[in-house]
Amino acid sequence: MGGYSNPATQRPLRLGMVGGGRGSLIGGPHRLAARLDGNYTLSAGAFSSNPEISKASGADLGIDPARCYGDFSEMARAEAAREDGIEVVSIVTPNHLHAPAAKAFLAAGIHVICDKPLTASLEEAIALKQAVDASGKMFFLTHNYSAYAMVRQARQMVATGELGEIRSVQVEYPSGWMAEAVEKTSNKQASWRTDPSQAGAGVIADIGTHAWHLARTVSGLELDELSADLASLVEGRRVDDHAQVLLRFAGGARGILWVSGIALGPENGLRIRIFGSLGGLEWSQMDPDALLHSPLGKPRQIIQRAAAGTSPYAQRLSRIPAGHPEGYFEAFGNVYRDAAAAIRGGCTSGLADPVFATVDDGVDGMQFIEACLASSASNAAWINFNSKR
Amino acid sequence: MGGYSNPATQRPLRLGMVGGGRGSLIGGPHRLAARLDGNYTLSAGAFSSNPEISKASGADLGIDPARCYGDFSEMARAEAAREDGIEVVSIVTPNHLHAPAAKAFLAAGIHVICDKPLTASLEEAIALKQAVDASGKMFFLTHNYSAYAMVRQARQMVATGELGEIRSVQVEYPSGWMAEAVEKTSNKQASWRTDPSQAGAGVIADIGTHAWHLARTVSGLELDELSADLASLVEGRRVDDHAQVLLRFAGGARGILWVSGIALGPENGLRIRIFGSLGGLEWSQMDPDALLHSPLGKPRQIIQRAAAGTSPYAQRLSRIPAGHPEGYFEAFGNVYRDAAAAIRGGCTSGLADPVFATVDDGVDGMQFIEACLASSASNAAWINFNSKR
Amino acid sequence: MGGYSNPATQRPLRLGMVGGGRGSLIGGPHRLAARLDGNYTLSAGAFSSNPEISKASGADLGIDPARCYGDFSEMARAEAAREDGIEVVSIVTPNHLHAPAAKAFLAAGIHVICDKPLTASLEEAIALKQAVDASGKMFFLTHNYSAYAMVRQARQMVATGELGEIRSVQVEYPSGWMAEAVEKTSNKQASWRTDPSQAGAGVIADIGTHAWHLARTVSGLELDELSADLASLVEGRRVDDHAQVLLRFAGGARGILWVSGIALGPENGLRIRIFGSLGGLEWSQMDPDALLHSPLGKPRQIIQRAAAGTSPYAQRLSRIPAGHPEGYFEAFGNVYRDAAAAIRGGCTSGLADPVFATVDDGVDGMQFIEACLASSASNAAWINFNSKR
Amino acid sequence: MGGYSNPATQRPLRLGMVGGGRGSLIGGPHRLAARLDGNYTLSAGAFSSNPEISKASGADLGIDPARCYGDFSEMARAEAAREDGIEVVSIVTPNHLHAPAAKAFLAAGIHVICDKPLTASLEEAIALKQAVDASGKMFFLTHNYSAYAMVRQARQMVATGELGEIRSVQVEYPSGWMAEAVEKTSNKQASWRTDPSQAGAGVIADIGTHAWHLARTVSGLELDELSADLASLVEGRRVDDHAQVLLRFAGGARGILWVSGIALGPENGLRIRIFGSLGGLEWSQMDPDALLHSPLGKPRQIIQRAAAGTSPYAQRLSRIPAGHPEGYFEAFGNVYRDAAAAIRGGCTSGLADPVFATVDDGVDGMQFIEACLASSASNAAWINFNSKR
Repeated sequence: MGGYSNPATQRPLRLGMVGGGRGSLIGGPHRLAARLDGNYTLSAGAFSSNPEISKASGADLGIDPARCYGDFSEMARAEAAREDGIEVVSIVTPNHLHAPAAKAFLAAGIHVICDKPLTASLEEAIALKQAVDASGKMFFLTHNYSAYAMVRQARQMVATGELGEIRSVQVEYPSGWMAEAVEKTSNKQASWRTDPSQAGAGVIADIGTHAWHLARTVSGLELDELSADLASLVEGRRVDDHAQVLLRFAGGARGILWVSGIALGPENGLRIRIFGSLGGLEWSQMDPDALLHSPLGKPRQIIQRAAAGTSPYAQRLSRIPAGHPEGYFEAFGNVYRDAAAAIRGGCTSGLADPVFATVDDGVDGMQFIEACLASSASNAAWINFNSKR
Repeated sequence: MGGYSNPATQRPLRLGMVGGGRGSLIGGPHRLAARLDGNYTLSAGAFSSNPEISKASGADLGIDPARCYGDFSEMARAEAAREDGIEVVSIVTPNHLHAPAAKAFLAAGIHVICDKPLTASLEEAIALKQAVDASGKMFFLTHNYSAYAMVRQARQMVATGELGEIRSVQVEYPSGWMAEAVEKTSNKQASWRTDPSQAGAGVIADIGTHAWHLARTVSGLELDELSADLASLVEGRRVDDHAQVLLRFAGGARGILWVSGIALGPENGLRIRIFGSLGGLEWSQMDPDALLHSPLGKPRQIIQRAAAGTSPYAQRLSRIPAGHPEGYFEAFGNVYRDAAAAIRGGCTSGLADPVFATVDDGVDGMQFIEACLASSASNAAWINFNSKR
Repeated sequence: MGGYSNPATQRPLRLGMVGGGRGSLIGGPHRLAARLDGNYTLSAGAFSSNPEISKASGADLGIDPARCYGDFSEMARAEAAREDGIEVVSIVTPNHLHAPAAKAFLAAGIHVICDKPLTASLEEAIALKQAVDASGKMFFLTHNYSAYAMVRQARQMVATGELGEIRSVQVEYPSGWMAEAVEKTSNKQASWRTDPSQAGAGVIADIGTHAWHLARTVSGLELDELSADLASLVEGRRVDDHAQVLLRFAGGARGILWVSGIALGPENGLRIRIFGSLGGLEWSQMDPDALLHSPLGKPRQIIQRAAAGTSPYAQRLSRIPAGHPEGYFEAFGNVYRDAAAAIRGGCTSGLADPVFATVDDGVDGMQFIEACLASSASNAAWINFNSKR
Repeated sequence: MGGYSNPATQRPLRLGMVGGGRGSLIGGPHRLAARLDGNYTLSAGAFSSNPEISKASGADLGIDPARCYGDFSEMARAEAAREDGIEVVSIVTPNHLHAPAAKAFLAAGIHVICDKPLTASLEEAIALKQAVDASGKMFFLTHNYSAYAMVRQARQMVATGELGEIRSVQVEYPSGWMAEAVEKTSNKQASWRTDPSQAGAGVIADIGTHAWHLARTVSGLELDELSADLASLVEGRRVDDHAQVLLRFAGGARGILWVSGIALGPENGLRIRIFGSLGGLEWSQMDPDALLHSPLGKPRQIIQRAAAGTSPYAQRLSRIPAGHPEGYFEAFGNVYRDAAAAIRGGCTSGLADPVFATVDDGVDGMQFIEACLASSASNAAWINFNSKR
């Protein structure tokens, strides 16, 4: 089926990983996403800062024990020195380790794929951006939700003017996993994600950056200012678990970003609705193959991935005909696929417009988090936000 | 079927109407709602301030021409003087006429059913409340959306603690009817609804009060303060067509109220989501027979009107077994039904807790509008909101 | 709003009722439907064959006791003799009384609105048709489900060729009310609906005729032959509670009709899907304001009642703007509205194509039931079905 | 997250492939499914009967050219002779080549994973079963749709009696890809799938076997007899494109299987509804993470993959927390995962009940196809179906 993208027919790239050892939530999905289209071979890792856990984790994955490290700096040096050393590394540690790990690999001449949010502070993020720029290496931020085929379809419809002038962007990410005091259990995820020193912030950093990146990617709008009201609604919680943010965009458009960890109902209810003078769009992460399009004066349409109405731009990201759901891993795989294409020097399909989040998106995301924290600390005062740095 | 409510078996009440003549949008639905359960006979009206249009409109409805008035004051006096005069009047005029008309009928000893928002200003609303209190007559505000059976079900589930402590209330009412500059057409509705002098405000007054009343009715929470960002997103518009409001409730719960007239997609997408420590609820006006309940640690449930899980409290408002959709008119009819029951001195079913919006809800709604306007005029500053007056 | 239909502006018709007394399931909805648009005044009734219950039921409804009869024959004679006698009667008894009651009123020169199925046997149905033809009076069968606005929209889209040549019609009506042995309780409905002598048959007669009428109305196809497999899946049940029917239409189209009383899930899941060479349609009774249209080679559309894409033909049946759900009673009211229009000599709106089920539809429905029973009795043998009688 | 399954930590199995070269629809998904959990290394292939296309296809996939064959018999011999030869082969050719290819590998001592339907005739299928039994090797049929996590959940709920006695099974697979005369284009898929000599039959063989296997897997019922009406509804088509089948199960339960290639709407609308004395279940392939459960006398529940209510049995097949959609490839990957576990001598998780379709399911599927063809050829006569061979 000509329209479907084929996996690369080139030699797989040698991939390393930092973090993602036994007990990790996100290491497995990263590896699966990397494996999905056959573009990578996992060759080395510093899967844990505990060398024994790192080796054991590597053994689970069939990695040469000699290439299972307990320290990412050592790994960067050692891999750079090998002829068959890794070409690109995935960093899937808690947030505060992203920057030091990334810098070590960039300095060693190795491309970086990094989980989001970029860092634990804006200051760190800016320094990391400088390191990326200085290194000449590529940096990919895994904003996997923005990589769903139908998100790209939405982005293109907005970019080409199909919705007219954009007037409003409503984005939300309700989830309920923090509705109980999960940090009081032995849940490893809950532990670091609710520790201000490790996570930087709560839901605004964790899922807020996903929601913000989605809004920004689809709308293409510049944010002028925001007013954020963050709250910790479960007793004893040390980070925000509920965030409500008013958005004012350049040109006058308005929006709301709402994310929550206490919203019992949809497990990962990321959703965007965007309204222009000529139409509206709605997309939900839990039904990702469908994009609802409401053109002015016409009936609502359901544009289905890989079916009629899908642009070549989104079609490029489809692996299977319409009606066969693609999901979370396929979106995540799109990030890895486009990263491989970019590293190799172009997009697989020849279709223009490879889209991937870069260190600039990461800085923007950190700026968003810090602006929200600053606004909330000032009773939701308006904070000027200039995303052009 | 014992569980279904029967229409009153008593003599219908004699009903009058102010407004609602030819070309009116809302007169017809009020009449249909009144007729639905056989509790009223429409007997008189001041259907228009133009006596000829009033008579012609009355003729369409089979009203005695002698009881078709061109002036509501005259109507109040004349009807009060008749032995068979109206017992209750429905006021369905533009907002700025609600107060003077209501006062005239209250003074004449006639109960009032009034469309929302209560008045065009808070000052007027407070004065009207005093008139109601002084009159000893009953006053019903037609918050029809809050009268859907499953909204009442939701309210009761919250009130009885089934959701635990309420942490967040998210309410929205997107619609798209103002996406174009409809006020530049000859649309009568658009004309008065976008004229600040007639409507008081834009969407925040029109649908914002519905959304706010819904949030208040279901959650039972007191609002502490709000921060509102109102906008006119269509060029040349003189009232707000998009409103975003942050809510802080007594006790710490947070919420957002978002209403829009430029949101192309759902035609009348009123929806509430409410989250407590023990569960979440979701209800959408466009699918009103279903209430989604997400109890902590259990699968999501769809409570269907008149089916398993519906409380007697909501069951009382069902007219037909589950799976046969009830809609807008049935909810509107619930307002008229409970009004008739209250006028007659009790609820039809003997089940406690007749729920209807009163003049207090109207004052609260006007206070909400004015607080939103004040906040927005001060760059979304927080406005203290004490709903206990 | 010019597009919405207004209630008749003529004198209400005087309506009588046979059946529908205290404890009746369907009497209330018929009365509500009649009342909805103000076209009828309920003036007399034989609400029960027990004169006392009839009088008590009439008293509940405010009917003159002198016009509450214990016998429909007496009622027909008496009403015909009054100057202010009823002009039309609604027959809402168990099925086996439809024919004798209808004949009595037709003979008295009174129009008849009759619940479905038409009779308890095809023989009776044919005799009734002859009585209708001989009387010169009008006869309306209350196929309320076929009267939803968006069913009419679907019908028109098929009729005008928008779907191309029709290839398949899939209609189903799952419900679960008979999943338990309800006939062993004191449920009055369950009692007569599961008694072969009163109901004629089980689900095939009760909801099967609704499903069949819907398929026939929307598709416009002639049925050539059918193969039916009826079953009683609950122990001790005396009528069918599950029916599966293969359909072959003139011209080669195929279809399935499936109805069930033991299908736990959707409470009244009537649904039709129809497929042509140029597109497909899907409509569900539990979401009746939406019609899904899948044009060949284009994205799926959701045509919403009273919104873009609705034809004037369906618009005529809308009472309220899009996004405000209309439901069961509004559809039922459409039957009564079109009946009033036809009795008065034309459609209210001037739009062509008044649609109402007639005695011919009733005969067709009875023929369908009998063909299904005959086929099932012969191990689902094909039965020739010539709907042209 | 302890509940999620980890990829195998053992050496990947060496996998070969027959078919699946350039232009193949199903080769890519098989490879992706095999790759998903890291259990296989694709090592050899006869990707096409044209040796040059086979080599070119293998080159695309990074396969050693020496192990790219133009003939599956040669491949079986050569691979069996190598020390590092393949351990298992995937057969993804058109249906008529399944049996000869499978026999070649079984004879060479190599396990077989085979696309469905098993063969092009029942006779062939029975012979193949004998070959499997004689070989002592394992045989897996890729009924990928039956491998979705929530299908397994449904199966277990039925098996443990949660639905009570099963009364009805309704399964359907509407799709629209054959609505036009696609065989007249140069579409390779359309060409062989509409050629009776290559495909054996039309939709009944292609998607009918999927639907049937799903019904059988979930319900656990034995089929007593069936009555099938197959049709070719597009002019000039040589195979069936629409099939309607009445089912009678041992014990009295009834069902319908409906599959179509001309049903414009849902692209791959495979869906099952199953009704028992204690509850109903509904599952749709296009929303595969949700299982609707309607327990008798309680509200409907939405059991979400990996969320509350999911059994360990289904949880075992989850790779990511609830609310992150898993889709087609993950289900397909479940087949490959369980195959790897079985080949290695057990299930990864230690949870009992590895489920995979075997050659027996394949014979059953072929018997189903042949029974449908025989019934249809006899005007939908009942055909006795004894699935115990």
